[in-house]
Amino acid sequence: VSMEEAMPAVFAQLDTVRAQLEAHYADMQDLEFTVQQGKLYMLQTRSGKRTAAAALRMAVEMAEEGLISRNEALLRLDPVALDQLLHPTLDPDASRTVLTQGLPASPGAASGEIVLSADRAEELAAGGKQVILVRLETSPEDIHGMHAAAGILTARGGMTSHAAVVARGMGRACVSGAGDLRFDETSGKVYIRDHELSEGDIITIDGGTGEVFSGSVKTVQPEMSGAFATVMAWADDTRRMAVRTNAETPADARTAVDFGAEGIGLCRTEHMFFDVDRIIAMREMIMAADSVGRESALAKLLPMQRRDFEELFTIMAGLPVTIRLLDPPLHEFLPHSADELAEVAAAAGITAETARQRSLKLSESNPMLGHRGCRLAVTYPEICRMQARAIFEAASNVTKGGAEAPVPEVMIPLAATAKELEICKAVIDQEAVAVAGETGISIDYLVGTMVELPRAAVCADGLAEQAEFFSFGTNDLTQTALGISRDDAGAFMHAYTDAEIYPVDPFVSIDVDGVGALVKMGAERGRSVRSDIKLGICGEHGGDPASISFFETVGLDYVSCSPYRVPAARLATAQATIRAQAETAD
Amino acid sequence: VSMEEAMPAVFAQLDTVRAQLEAHYADMQDLEFTVQQGKLYMLQTRSGKRTAAAALRMAVEMAEEGLISRNEALLRLDPVALDQLLHPTLDPDASRTVLTQGLPASPGAASGEIVLSADRAEELAAGGKQVILVRLETSPEDIHGMHAAAGILTARGGMTSHAAVVARGMGRACVSGAGDLRFDETSGKVYIRDHELSEGDIITIDGGTGEVFSGSVKTVQPEMSGAFATVMAWADDTRRMAVRTNAETPADARTAVDFGAEGIGLCRTEHMFFDVDRIIAMREMIMAADSVGRESALAKLLPMQRRDFEELFTIMAGLPVTIRLLDPPLHEFLPHSADELAEVAAAAGITAETARQRSLKLSESNPMLGHRGCRLAVTYPEICRMQARAIFEAASNVTKGGAEAPVPEVMIPLAATAKELEICKAVIDQEAVAVAGETGISIDYLVGTMVELPRAAVCADGLAEQAEFFSFGTNDLTQTALGISRDDAGAFMHAYTDAEIYPVDPFVSIDVDGVGALVKMGAERGRSVRSDIKLGICGEHGGDPASISFFETVGLDYVSCSPYRVPAARLATAQATIRAQAETAD
Repeated sequence: VSMEEAMPAVFAQLDTVRAQLEAHYADMQDLEFTVQQGKLYMLQTRSGKRTAAAALRMAVEMAEEGLISRNEALLRLDPVALDQLLHPTLDPDASRTVLTQGLPASPGAASGEIVLSADRAEELAAGGKQVILVRLETSPEDIHGMHAAAGILTARGGMTSHAAVVARGMGRACVSGAGDLRFDETSGKVYIRDHELSEGDIITIDGGTGEVFSGSVKTVQPEMSGAFATVMAWADDTRRMAVRTNAETPADARTAVDFGAEGIGLCRTEHMFFDVDRIIAMREMIMAADSVGRESALAKLLPMQRRDFEELFTIMAGLPVTIRLLDPPLHEFLPHSADELAEVAAAAGITAETARQRSLKLSESNPMLGHRGCRLAVTYPEICRMQARAIFEAASNVTKGGAEAPVPEVMIPLAATAKELEICKAVIDQEAVAVAGETGISIDYLVGTMVELPRAAVCADGLAEQAEFFSFGTNDLTQTALGISRDDAGAFMHAYTDAEIYPVDPFVSIDVDGVGALVKMGAERGRSVRSDIKLGICGEHGGDPASISFFETVGLDYVSCSPYRVPAARLATAQATIRAQAETAD
Repeated sequence: VSMEEAMPAVFAQLDTVRAQLEAHYADMQDLEFTVQQGKLYMLQTRSGKRTAAAALRMAVEMAEEGLISRNEALLRLDPVALDQLLHPTLDPDASRTVLTQGLPASPGAASGEIVLSADRAEELAAGGKQVILVRLETSPEDIHGMHAAAGILTARGGMTSHAAVVARGMGRACVSGAGDLRFDETSGKVYIRDHELSEGDIITIDGGTGEVFSGSVKTVQPEMSGAFATVMAWADDTRRMAVRTNAETPADARTAVDFGAEGIGLCRTEHMFFDVDRIIAMREMIMAADSVGRESALAKLLPMQRRDFEELFTIMAGLPVTIRLLDPPLHEFLPHSADELAEVAAAAGITAETARQRSLKLSESNPMLGHRGCRLAVTYPEICRMQARAIFEAASNVTKGGAEAPVPEVMIPLAATAKELEICKAVIDQEAVAVAGETGISIDYLVGTMVELPRAAVCADGLAEQAEFFSFGTNDLTQTALGISRDDAGAFMHAYTDAEIYPVDPFVSIDVDGVGALVKMGAERGRSVRSDIKLGICGEHGGDPASISFFETVGLDYVSCSPYRVPAARLATAQATIRAQAETAD
């Protein structure tokens, strides 16, 4: 019998209390109660848990019914949970067999045949197959396979591993650090606990929970109209900061525009060369013995870059595009295997032994603090020159084609001094003039810098004399300000967050007191010299709600994040504006 | 005929002009003149160049004769040139044959038989031979050989290479980066251009000029009384900042005290374990799989540490001794060769393969930003505990022996947050109480931190709530603030100083606008919370006159430098005080 039938008076009383509580909290309530000797005791009440989709729908309905304001509706939503709505999810009714659990590295559910190499992933995907790329861990050489795959599963690596970061950027489902995975290299088999898998066997991964399932589990496609669209429109009406995206591939740029990005805040040009057929020319350039060798490799890279930029400018259709000049951490690009060395040697016309020697000579003790960023442009201006030419030629070509004229924002990476900017800007300006002379088309552009070193923040007034915009690169700024290598933090970061030395991983949410103080200092000092300097942020923090809330207080003009975080950023920037307004009103 | 005989009238006129000019400039003059048709034309005059010894003597004489003030005498001297007076120099009259020239990495002239390995250097030196250690480059494993040698010659490495830095610290003559040097490993011969050398052949190096000579060239011993002693006494009467030394060996501490050091500002405890017979226990500790293994290795290290501290406290006789807790950049300590792995494995009771695996696991992408400094103490408090115990037991033992009670200043490295200090300080305080309970002797001590990360400078107010002193570690602060790895800067630093991006190498003279601003910020924010906080600096900049001049303006309490730079620092701090007073008077 139901409670309603067994004790109708108490049930009616409970229903009244529920209605009172839900009206009071303006939210659905989870109630705990007991009935003793016919008397109702309310034990606890709290706002009910629900799926992101339900929360969204409920907030919109309540706002439309006038129970809460639009601002209240926006504040009530968790920006991070929105991510679930952008990806396929497991059908809640589908049956499933869990094989293991790793880390929820990138949301979305995906099924497919397992493949063990990036090349094989690309091959099968080209044949129309849906595949899951399974690797011990991933590296830049796997990018094409990650693009081709529906999902990625790795045995090693945390939430900020290569696989996790790249997958989130691409919007691919990813489960990382699934420690139960073992590879038998001789037989080519994969074991998950006792479960044996061969290439072609089908698995399903849920990047939102980290679970890995046997076989194909039915998924539900995301729904981005209705309440989702309403909330996004309200957020756009409300927020002060613009939302851009970090993107360098046409696919990413399109995704981001679909998700509402208002420009590209970070196009990492070195990422354009991770592809197998391009990395050789890039390696040839890095390993050139002199400027002659470098120019020869650069000549191969120029047309590729120009095409890349043409595509991006076309997709972004007049929206701002911030292009960061080459900033390759050398260790990510140097060839390692004998095959890779042979390829580079052949391309450069040198012996494999010479290639090996040069590679050894270029290896660094601390590549994060090495010969990278604008240090490359200062020592080898021809690299900067080629990239500037590619940018201006592409912009001219797109304009000639009748499309809206792009306004490229050329960004100089890893600057610490005004002089570095002056040197690089001179090369960029020269090339702009040269290209305009050749094409007859004059392109509007900005030259600015990434503020990602503590010195740049401290000396931002000097830098602003050269730079028309700053983009705070808070990933590297966190590494240098805190003296923590993101690649090596795994050994102690858990102990650090457990001991609340940092309340959360500072690579996830900005360390407000330290890194945040430097961002604030950089913004203030920059504005003191150039009051209209454009200020943005393009680290991973650009998609993190807590960090966005801080950036609002600093008054940045925009945040830039990976494409799949754009909706979350639109909501989070709106929430930040509402909270800031409330504080001002207080 | 002399000019005096040939044209006595013109000569007399020249003598009058000379006297006028020397009185005017209060300095010996180099004159250029010509005589045409019996008429004297003065072309140019400038203060005469002279050796450091002559400059010193002349300044003292002029001050004593009242021609210039003592302050003028002090300002007229070049602190860096003093270094020449602390070491043997080549007899100017001795004949010599130059073989090649490298970099003047560490001053002093030395002759001896060449030896090609550190072990052989130690062996021959023990037999009373004077040797020059000749290496491609040096590494921490060569320290005992560098100690044993009279001088060091390397084919590779700049002014801040391992050989150069260590040699300067030890006061050994060193010529580095002598690119003409070639080693024939099969024959064991060394070639300098066409010149063939075998072990036992004698060469002479001049670390003040970088020259390398064939055979033995006669040297002149330094003279530290007379004018030198007078100038040092005047400097000591004048300067505001104290001068301490960076030292961890008894020999260095004694040298520094002889040169007038007023305490130890930086005792790098990990340097106490570079010796061959100790590095095994250190490696065992670093590579321990768990705290049981670590405690077992620490038990071997404790008595060594305690003896080290006892010696240092005894030598420093009541002067302050700042002891930095363990801060090993892992890559400097991990075993590389099979022999080294076998040694560690045997000591730890594990297989060589296990040792190799652990070593691989500990290798880092960016060791400078890795699991080091107080991160070790936070994750493995037993290391901090052992060191605190060694310090307090040593202090008790020295006090019991009737010597003046030392006041150890326990320094926590690489802190970025107040919480790290709180955690480490709790362990140190506990151990102080425990040792006092066991020995019945209560030791006065301070706990402070090294400010060597940008975050520490920015958040210095928080840190000062825990720290009783700050020592600015400007080497690492330069690396992190500028994002430049000292080990990797060679690839671009020349281009950077040539382009005046940095007017001088920022590891030689502090980058005032960037790193200096952080030091100033750290000092001000620290004082805002603890007005009597003791402030010092212990990077290489502590011995650099330009940097010292800046530290005076920040109002630091002391500078600390390597023993052989103490006299230069005494003079430079005096000059800084005089200039600061002059500016205040303006």
